[in-house]
Amino acid sequence: MKLRAVFRPKTLCVIGVSQYNPLSPGTVIYQKNLHEMEVEVFGVNPRGGKIDDREIYKSVSDVPKDIDLAVICIHAEAVNGVMEECGEVGVKGVVVVSGGFAEIGGEGVERQNQLVKIARKYDMAVIGPNCVGVYSPPYVDTFFLPSERLVTPPPGNVAVISQSGGVLVDQFFSKYTERKIGVSVAVSIGNKAVVDENVLLDYFKNDPKTKLITLYIEGFREKEGALFLRKAAECFEKKPVLVFRAGKSDYGRRATVSHTGSVMTATNVASAAFRQWGVIEAESEYEIITFSKVLSFKLPSIKNGDVAILTISGGHGVLCADLCAQYGLRLVEFTEEEQEEMRRLLNPSAAPIASLKNPIDLTGSLMDNDVEKIADYLMKNEKVEALILLMLPYPPTISMQLGRRTANIVRKYRKPVVAYVPWLPKYSMIVEGFELNGVPVAHTVEEAVQMIKALKLKGEAEMRINRTLSYERFSS
Amino acid sequence: MKLRAVFRPKTLCVIGVSQYNPLSPGTVIYQKNLHEMEVEVFGVNPRGGKIDDREIYKSVSDVPKDIDLAVICIHAEAVNGVMEECGEVGVKGVVVVSGGFAEIGGEGVERQNQLVKIARKYDMAVIGPNCVGVYSPPYVDTFFLPSERLVTPPPGNVAVISQSGGVLVDQFFSKYTERKIGVSVAVSIGNKAVVDENVLLDYFKNDPKTKLITLYIEGFREKEGALFLRKAAECFEKKPVLVFRAGKSDYGRRATVSHTGSVMTATNVASAAFRQWGVIEAESEYEIITFSKVLSFKLPSIKNGDVAILTISGGHGVLCADLCAQYGLRLVEFTEEEQEEMRRLLNPSAAPIASLKNPIDLTGSLMDNDVEKIADYLMKNEKVEALILLMLPYPPTISMQLGRRTANIVRKYRKPVVAYVPWLPKYSMIVEGFELNGVPVAHTVEEAVQMIKALKLKGEAEMRINRTLSYERFSS
Repeated sequence: MKLRAVFRPKTLCVIGVSQYNPLSPGTVIYQKNLHEMEVEVFGVNPRGGKIDDREIYKSVSDVPKDIDLAVICIHAEAVNGVMEECGEVGVKGVVVVSGGFAEIGGEGVERQNQLVKIARKYDMAVIGPNCVGVYSPPYVDTFFLPSERLVTPPPGNVAVISQSGGVLVDQFFSKYTERKIGVSVAVSIGNKAVVDENVLLDYFKNDPKTKLITLYIEGFREKEGALFLRKAAECFEKKPVLVFRAGKSDYGRRATVSHTGSVMTATNVASAAFRQWGVIEAESEYEIITFSKVLSFKLPSIKNGDVAILTISGGHGVLCADLCAQYGLRLVEFTEEEQEEMRRLLNPSAAPIASLKNPIDLTGSLMDNDVEKIADYLMKNEKVEALILLMLPYPPTISMQLGRRTANIVRKYRKPVVAYVPWLPKYSMIVEGFELNGVPVAHTVEEAVQMIKALKLKGEAEMRINRTLSYERFSS
Repeated sequence: MKLRAVFRPKTLCVIGVSQYNPLSPGTVIYQKNLHEMEVEVFGVNPRGGKIDDREIYKSVSDVPKDIDLAVICIHAEAVNGVMEECGEVGVKGVVVVSGGFAEIGGEGVERQNQLVKIARKYDMAVIGPNCVGVYSPPYVDTFFLPSERLVTPPPGNVAVISQSGGVLVDQFFSKYTERKIGVSVAVSIGNKAVVDENVLLDYFKNDPKTKLITLYIEGFREKEGALFLRKAAECFEKKPVLVFRAGKSDYGRRATVSHTGSVMTATNVASAAFRQWGVIEAESEYEIITFSKVLSFKLPSIKNGDVAILTISGGHGVLCADLCAQYGLRLVEFTEEEQEEMRRLLNPSAAPIASLKNPIDLTGSLMDNDVEKIADYLMKNEKVEALILLMLPYPPTISMQLGRRTANIVRKYRKPVVAYVPWLPKYSMIVEGFELNGVPVAHTVEEAVQMIKALKLKGEAEMRINRTLSYERFSS
């Protein structure tokens, strides 16, 4: 399939523009690509006319150039006729925005089967139906939502595949932007009649811009799930595959049927199977964001989850200790001797009152270089696999250099470090100091712990995937 | 005890100011009260001197006015001597910022016992030791952290009592501000040697500014827990009591000992006991914020948790359905007839593709008045106890009036409604439209579900508290 035409089209034809309604999906897509993206755009409507003095063509065959990608936003009943026409003029890829297919049952199912036949006949890569399609900057953007209503995540290395357009633009785009997670390409696959997760995994596996593939999945069709595991395993050797499933409860399952017409949900592809094949699974809308963030950083994975906590606030230390227990991480125990070694590194105000068990609580009497020295000590300590820094910069002795200085020190070692810093504009210098130097910053204590969990899941996935693949190779 | 002197002092004496170090805790407190608060401030240091041309007194007895509140920030060994002096000159309340008491064990325990004796001898209301003390705007603020480093929550009706100063200024102040939750008074009680949660519950019970009391608790001492239940039950008749406990895991318990010297943790006061006595318990750092927000609104509580979900995005509907199942809420089932009644209310674009089961998915083809009409219909439907609105304003047909219009309609009924709206600056008109008209807006789908959970817990607490109290009255 010509997926390159979908993600990097030179020409785009929007079928279903309106010269009278600037809010119609077709017109929104037409305008945004014309003014915001690099692709060359043509509008089609059987009644012709003009939009801002630009000609509207009466059919696809009237468009004066070869078309890489067509976007169809017309009533469901008319879609398959237009699909045929696209096939005949040699369109390579199609995004079908229109709803009214398998997700409504009955005639919709038949309509979708017909659509698949036409796609196969002309070998067209079809995204949808019932989707918002493709966001592939700077080339093309088929989302029918005006850009000024959306939040555009920064350019980056995460590819997003979503069965829901709403979840894509909100849970991923808005929340990713809030957390500064960069996106390479995003696809809403809707009913995934032709192009599904598996086709896309094959494509993104070799996409050099993409370093992490994240998916929002409501359900798999028969056989699709088993194939997904194999495709994901193949990807994992190059880049992690991260999944968030919805529709796991009875209520959720019922809701998916009327949403994307998924006839079989992921219950038959249990989390155990995901784990076996190296897929990293996020369990909540929070985890999918946090996991995306930490996996988009170049941090080493960990095996056992032996963690040290370095904090400025005793209460945060207690909260974090509870969360480590809840997330199956272990707190390293330091001997009296090790505690004394650390105490000797501290400034004279903090030394007598700091608590050097784990969590290590430097208290509000600390200064920047107390954090630097203890962090360095912990990196050298062989018992410590990963470090969580709870850096509340409220005491006046902490400087805005805390992030950069500490990050530069810990990055000398091959151990993951994550930080929690209150995500306030006035502390952005500390946050950026950490992040630009390779230490991801969480918005909450729980996010920091989730980040370490993700690195442990990645470590487990690396072990399992090798076992699974060598078994596969051995048996074949 | 003279708690009024602690929260509304006319005169404040800061013991331990430094003319050389502007970052010392005493000096920070001195300066911020002098320039930012209404209280009249005096500084004390045995060496005397001046700060910005204002005299530093050599002892408490040199201060030329009667002192309502003294703040002590000096080395632990010197605290009790100064406490005696305060007692002798008739100081009514004291905040002991200094650490080095029960939390360090050994001599610290003895020092704290001595401090309690002096407090009792002179009947002084002592906050701490080992705390940041009191934030009571516009009167006084004893936090030794510079205001420009903190985030000040808006004025409001929530009183906060915290065993950790760090948790108070960060988990409460920063996160409350992010969520626009207003604070009446906040107290960090530290080692709570004299003034503990129970004393404060008695005080806040009758504070007219406070409509909700929230607590961060790491542990209770012997007998303190049982008394807490009684005090909380007495409060609950007037205002809800909301608790977040930390130190629940083995790791967390060990961490609390070195933090606030709590010799007995809350394990002996199980969640079951809280429920019995009407205390509402939040289970995570997210829930404590969300519960605080929804309980600070004037929403009716609910009994069974029968929820309707109205969404613009099918995927968000699925996510929310999963979360309702996870949080023990039930989705109302609508008959075919009811679904048809709703369908007839919709605009012609949305009507054929909307899904009117529960979640009710209006799809991206909706307009404002589809939401208004369906919300009104659901409020009238007797099966629906509470409504969750998942309002993603990305489709261009949605106007900025959506929040106000919808809120005005649903507020005609005595049923709780909460909304999820992406919390973006460009949508603040919708968010404010909802919130100013009595519909709290969540930042995530999970927060919206947590809000309904809080109202169900409140409903259960109301039933239980009446049963518990009538049994108590019967047996006494």
